Amino acid sequence: MLKQPQAKYRAFAPIGLKDRTWPDAVLTKAPIWLSTDLRDGNQALVEPMDIARKMRMFETLVAIGFKEIEVGFPSASQVEFDFVRKLIEEDRIPDDVTIQVLTQARDHLITRTFESLQGAPRAIVHLYNAVAPIMRRVVLGMDEDQIVELATTHARMFNECAAKQPETQWTFQYSPEMFSGTDLAFSKRVVDAVTEVWQPTPEHKCIVNLPSTVEHSTPNIFADMIEWMHRHLARRDAIVLSVHPHNDRGTGTAAGEFALMAGADRLEGCLFGNGERTGNLDLVNIALNLYTQGVSPELDFSNIDEIRVVVEQCNQIPVHPRHPYVGDLVYTSFSGSHQDAIKKAFAARKDDDLWDMPYLPIDPKDVGRSYEAVIRVNSQSGKGGMAYLLESEYGIEMPRRLQMEFMQAVQRVMDVAGKELTAADLYALFEREYGLKTVQALQHRVIEEEGEGAAASVVLRGDLPWGGEIRRIEGRGNGPIDAFIQALAESTGHAIRVIDYHQHAIGAGADAQAVAYLELRVDDRHTLFGVGIDPNIVSASLKAIVSGLARARARNAPSAQSDTVAA
Amino acid sequence: MLKQPQAKYRAFAPIGLKDRTWPDAVLTKAPIWLSTDLRDGNQALVEPMDIARKMRMFETLVAIGFKEIEVGFPSASQVEFDFVRKLIEEDRIPDDVTIQVLTQARDHLITRTFESLQGAPRAIVHLYNAVAPIMRRVVLGMDEDQIVELATTHARMFNECAAKQPETQWTFQYSPEMFSGTDLAFSKRVVDAVTEVWQPTPEHKCIVNLPSTVEHSTPNIFADMIEWMHRHLARRDAIVLSVHPHNDRGTGTAAGEFALMAGADRLEGCLFGNGERTGNLDLVNIALNLYTQGVSPELDFSNIDEIRVVVEQCNQIPVHPRHPYVGDLVYTSFSGSHQDAIKKAFAARKDDDLWDMPYLPIDPKDVGRSYEAVIRVNSQSGKGGMAYLLESEYGIEMPRRLQMEFMQAVQRVMDVAGKELTAADLYALFEREYGLKTVQALQHRVIEEEGEGAAASVVLRGDLPWGGEIRRIEGRGNGPIDAFIQALAESTGHAIRVIDYHQHAIGAGADAQAVAYLELRVDDRHTLFGVGIDPNIVSASLKAIVSGLARARARNAPSAQSDTVAA
Repeated sequence: MLKQPQAKYRAFAPIGLKDRTWPDAVLTKAPIWLSTDLRDGNQALVEPMDIARKMRMFETLVAIGFKEIEVGFPSASQVEFDFVRKLIEEDRIPDDVTIQVLTQARDHLITRTFESLQGAPRAIVHLYNAVAPIMRRVVLGMDEDQIVELATTHARMFNECAAKQPETQWTFQYSPEMFSGTDLAFSKRVVDAVTEVWQPTPEHKCIVNLPSTVEHSTPNIFADMIEWMHRHLARRDAIVLSVHPHNDRGTGTAAGEFALMAGADRLEGCLFGNGERTGNLDLVNIALNLYTQGVSPELDFSNIDEIRVVVEQCNQIPVHPRHPYVGDLVYTSFSGSHQDAIKKAFAARKDDDLWDMPYLPIDPKDVGRSYEAVIRVNSQSGKGGMAYLLESEYGIEMPRRLQMEFMQAVQRVMDVAGKELTAADLYALFEREYGLKTVQALQHRVIEEEGEGAAASVVLRGDLPWGGEIRRIEGRGNGPIDAFIQALAESTGHAIRVIDYHQHAIGAGADAQAVAYLELRVDDRHTLFGVGIDPNIVSASLKAIVSGLARARARNAPSAQSDTVAA
Repeated sequence: MLKQPQAKYRAFAPIGLKDRTWPDAVLTKAPIWLSTDLRDGNQALVEPMDIARKMRMFETLVAIGFKEIEVGFPSASQVEFDFVRKLIEEDRIPDDVTIQVLTQARDHLITRTFESLQGAPRAIVHLYNAVAPIMRRVVLGMDEDQIVELATTHARMFNECAAKQPETQWTFQYSPEMFSGTDLAFSKRVVDAVTEVWQPTPEHKCIVNLPSTVEHSTPNIFADMIEWMHRHLARRDAIVLSVHPHNDRGTGTAAGEFALMAGADRLEGCLFGNGERTGNLDLVNIALNLYTQGVSPELDFSNIDEIRVVVEQCNQIPVHPRHPYVGDLVYTSFSGSHQDAIKKAFAARKDDDLWDMPYLPIDPKDVGRSYEAVIRVNSQSGKGGMAYLLESEYGIEMPRRLQMEFMQAVQRVMDVAGKELTAADLYALFEREYGLKTVQALQHRVIEEEGEGAAASVVLRGDLPWGGEIRRIEGRGNGPIDAFIQALAESTGHAIRVIDYHQHAIGAGADAQAVAYLELRVDDRHTLFGVGIDPNIVSASLKAIVSGLARARARNAPSAQSDTVAA
């Protein structure tokens, strides 16, 4: 039984920053974004990207609008080195984009790293070493002084290497690894020592990147840590303060947002949160969170599915169907009350209204998704979703009582099938329930004479109450519907009364069809709907009456299935 | 370009709770958990669960330790109704478990809901209606007074229905729907009006559940909202304060944790975060977050993969490979420096130490996962991961310099293949690189005489320096290795010097093997390792010398591939 953690784990100690300001901050501008898809993301793949996939990812990142892209760890392997060389030698880096590369604080790796950057117009070189107690004790066997010495020695080496390649515009970046698991005073000490070596200025800043290498705490504690560093770091005005959250506790996105609220300027992460273990900060998630708060992320996700396809191909890892903003199911509503509310809100919304839609935090169109996918119908659904789908996909605008009647037929199918119904499923069920195909053709002639009402002469063919053969029936009434009802009464003996009547057009121009919905009382026994569709508005109504009569006769037949219309 | 949200979205207004206390709160006990997998989760499935899958989910939830389980929306469909009846009639509900059912605030739905609960020993009946402005305006067409009237009328109906079924121990729950999108004063007004009707007491509480029906804001704002309600609700001591976060902004887990810190007593959510759109609060995530902070969640996830299989079968939605605590990749480390740190920390860790492992926020064993899966090796990996895998899977404890040598061979394969290598791949490469199978058998006789050193007489068979035929060679030295080197020098002309020597056992008892690692200097030209494995410790060493000699001869042959050992 896992219920008891016993004495194995301890709570992460709060920072206790009582005068914190971040909980009252509101984000009003985009951070500087750094994509590490090609470095931290790539190194977490079961099958790391080859050069072709790396290039595809790089070009996609550029197209989205990333201006800083970590492209690899060139001293770690030949593939990584070669990719950096290819970008530089083939002049693949746009003028407004800067590549970044990572290196550990070790002499030969730094030498090799600068070698990989020969001839680059601009570059961020990213130095890291571990500073956390667990790493000092177990892995490095160094005390605090030795860690500071390790960091500053290699920071100095950066100065020397850069001086030898003056054709490149250099930016230096330092990450105290496992910042999230290190006491703040020591993190500050190491960072200050490194910036003392680099001597950044407000005109030529360096980047200080604080990683939650492993997410250990609730994100409010991470925010307190960032705010503390933001306030206490030396040379703060000469530093771009960056964070690099991971997602071990499932709160990486919150940690990223809070870090910005706490004073950070820059976020490192990956598209859709790829990365080691539970992944890096999800840059798409956080960018679209900003977007839906009215802040431009300065990144373009207007065709999010296209980006997803590239990322899935490069990473060979699928994006989850419930992933914020992009998953297959996130613009889909299954619950009937939700569907009803969405339908009404779409109807009420004007184009220049603020986006205030129930259950849809973003307009799917803004990311290239569509309303068509919004609603499906399953056994939990009410009539709202069904009606919405038939209207949006087939132009069927059912009267409210017809919705209620038809929904019973839908529920019966749902309860048996236990599956969702698509719009096409629903339309097929609607056609079957109301016999829309059973009356194959219908000719009529209506003569209306003033003062005498109408005389209808109708030829019917199809699955008709008298057995299906073609027959001409005739009647008189105060209009074509009334005349037809009289004709039917004479030829079949059924008494039909029209309780309610709706008709509307589907489509426009020569292809337009009329749909008639007639609520009928048949033989003083059944109240039900008949539906007819025809290019001719009179034919549509007459078909609707035949539809209703057939349904009433089916109910009379004790053995008949309630969802068929066989006479 | 999606970069500009223009005027379509506005920022969610902060609550501005300046004297908030939640950022300093530390969680010290488990909340009351409510699983809504069978209700909110189920209604968001492309294919909702049938009765058999519902029952499997219910039994799994009970086994995990949930004491409150929302089992459906019985008035919504026959399947939902039937499942509730089945649980009650077949006596499937353990004595310490209470089922919960949801109903909208509508007369006939409430009647049907209580009908479904006939004969239940205990039940939570969960009433909801929309309170948010968008719903009042667009969907319901009601003002605030009418909403209060709607809620209280149906709350009174609860009292009446419950009175008619006195055999059941009732708990009432009320959710103001879209609490997260409603102004606090009005939410309080509606909730207070409902509890005024219900008159809960500290001995017989009701549940007030505050949903972030759609996640609109950063989770600190949700926390402020919950703390405000916690402080301002009437009859607070007679209320179990519950929250029901969704995850539209990817911060649902943070919202759930903060709600508890802000005063909530109870969390509603689903296993692995299933639910409408981006899902409900992920109860597994939040429970294990508590666990790794030393707090018992009072839920059992000690076999998390088994639970995952059930959930995937019931929901027909996969759990993502990077899902916190359970994904396929979350106990896998790909980066070399990470692997090295993990290896050292495992070695340093004692059983009763606090869990303080780099890159692993939870002991995989605690959730039934294993260390074997922790490390794979790819082109980003250093020698640490490779060494760890060969040691953990094959018992091979390489000396450090051998790790460095062999890693070059691994890197060459990585750079060509661009894929990860499994432990088996690595071992195959190790066997090939060191010719572990090329010397098929080796007989030896060593005679050691005091003062005269050893005389070795060795019979070799296999892929040997003199062409492969079986040959007996003889030599003398100060021990068996030295004697064998002399014998080889005589028969092949190669000068071999032993620089370093390691040997250890693999396995135990009759099956034990010895592995010898000899660092050799051959012909004053090559410094390299030879490796030999044999049940006999002397044979292992002699094989290692043959291995090293063969590798040196391969380097002499200019056309030879550097990763083969053909002589």
